[in-house]
Amino acid sequence: MDIRLPAEFAIIARHFKQLAGPGALGLADDAAVLTPPANRQLVISADAMVQGVHFLPDDPPETIGRKLLRVNLSDLAAMGADPLGYLLTVSVPKDTPDAWFAAFAAGLAQDQAHFGISLLGGDTTSTPGPVSLSATVLGHVAPGAALTRAGARAGDFIYVTGTIGDGALGLRARRGDIADPDGFLAGRYRLPQPRLGLALAGIASAAMDISDGLLQDLGHVCRASGLGAEIHAPLVPRSPAACAAGPAWLPLCLTGGDDYELLLAVPPSAEAALLAEARRGQVPMTRIGTFVEDAARFDVLDASGMTMVIPQAGWSHF
Amino acid sequence: MDIRLPAEFAIIARHFKQLAGPGALGLADDAAVLTPPANRQLVISADAMVQGVHFLPDDPPETIGRKLLRVNLSDLAAMGADPLGYLLTVSVPKDTPDAWFAAFAAGLAQDQAHFGISLLGGDTTSTPGPVSLSATVLGHVAPGAALTRAGARAGDFIYVTGTIGDGALGLRARRGDIADPDGFLAGRYRLPQPRLGLALAGIASAAMDISDGLLQDLGHVCRASGLGAEIHAPLVPRSPAACAAGPAWLPLCLTGGDDYELLLAVPPSAEAALLAEARRGQVPMTRIGTFVEDAARFDVLDASGMTMVIPQAGWSHF
Repeated sequence: MDIRLPAEFAIIARHFKQLAGPGALGLADDAAVLTPPANRQLVISADAMVQGVHFLPDDPPETIGRKLLRVNLSDLAAMGADPLGYLLTVSVPKDTPDAWFAAFAAGLAQDQAHFGISLLGGDTTSTPGPVSLSATVLGHVAPGAALTRAGARAGDFIYVTGTIGDGALGLRARRGDIADPDGFLAGRYRLPQPRLGLALAGIASAAMDISDGLLQDLGHVCRASGLGAEIHAPLVPRSPAACAAGPAWLPLCLTGGDDYELLLAVPPSAEAALLAEARRGQVPMTRIGTFVEDAARFDVLDASGMTMVIPQAGWSHF
Repeated sequence: MDIRLPAEFAIIARHFKQLAGPGALGLADDAAVLTPPANRQLVISADAMVQGVHFLPDDPPETIGRKLLRVNLSDLAAMGADPLGYLLTVSVPKDTPDAWFAAFAAGLAQDQAHFGISLLGGDTTSTPGPVSLSATVLGHVAPGAALTRAGARAGDFIYVTGTIGDGALGLRARRGDIADPDGFLAGRYRLPQPRLGLALAGIASAAMDISDGLLQDLGHVCRASGLGAEIHAPLVPRSPAACAAGPAWLPLCLTGGDDYELLLAVPPSAEAALLAEARRGQVPMTRIGTFVEDAARFDVLDASGMTMVIPQAGWSHF
């Protein structure tokens, strides 16, 4: 009897095997086997992405795998962890052409090289529905050095990296609601930039990545730390493209999500060290407000110091 | 401004938080943080399951999470690893009722207790398509003791655990093609039994779990080990229910998949130790053939020693 490899394994061999790193056993075994880095804690996060929800049907396959990877890497960045590798599940329609897999894997290869990680394992299946992806990323951190959402203290400054709102505006630009002549906003939606590589242990007292909207995610840090917050909307850094969209889009910038920037709590005494580290890492870093003792307070102030009313704090799937 | 938790986080808090174990940070942070077990290697596997492909729309939500977990645990069993924890992504339609999540989580809680593992993290999203799940399981093994598919040697016996074919017949029974009066076959499809807990290091020279059909998966071990194989179809252990289905279903038993039993290569010198370990673990263990030097040979023999011709070796998604 002749036992040939069926198409599924041919796809894996042709497109995914090149992505496999040490421990992946060539993606040809039941699981990956790896020796954990000595004297480090493991940091692990998993995310799913569904076509029509997290990316658009006409997004190029090169970028959707990269977006998934970057969204996950952003979670590691928020913990102050260094990335190690990832596992991937890919569920696509049966008639998905070989060129789709080639482009999808080429995008991943590019980001693997950029972030110094490799594929450890995963699963490829068919689906009668939209393309559904998931990734689990593994990273590591010095024992006890992981940044959480729970460490902020009253009086800590609220800092964000990069610019806020571009991802949400980018989605609207893709839908034709906003002009985006050079594609900057759409690009920010399609390919977030995880803020890996900043040495924030001993500087930030709490951290998270902004994925569901600045206000909602700030609310998470407040709840985890038992604090309230006051931020100044005019201080929230927006890109030239986001500013050009006009002031009517400010609420969406604050609540839209898909930023994958870091939100940090920083004691005033650590501010100078934060800004030095931001310069070293060439990451824009902006102070937008302060954590306050009163857990019932959550104020977003406008240019005249008046409290803004924003209808929906952030993104929810349900 | 009032920042309330949106529905998504309410679902996580209500149903998934109770499943969170040490390191999961209450599922309220960006990632899990765990100290790897000392002097062990990590073993990691990821699987996806899609409604209509890996489980049926009318499967109870209690069992679909458990099936996903068990399919993944079976991969750890195939590596000889002990399970530690898992991450989960759940993509479901927006109108999924709360009772669905409650039942889904209750099933997981039951299996977590049974297998001694806990939830480390994950993601809950909406989907416009069928329910799509993924899980990544973490386990550990003594350094160098992981069983792979590549270690079989010519002359090693081919062993399988349990009975083969029940899962594939169970799917047919669910479709009404096969009588299944007591629901045994359907139950085997719905809830596989991962063969964890056998101490196979130093006994088996190669191992894998049978998920895509005995013949195809045996082909994988042959390819990885550079060998051929000869098995005797009448020796392949079948349950009373599978036998009752009749001899016409034998080819499906050999190729159908969804078994999640172990396929082992065992040197004749280790056979007594294998059988002693199987007795200790109360796991049925059956010798069905032998690995042979000639990598071009892949023979399935019938009761009269004639080579059987079986049209399709196993399951492929594409």
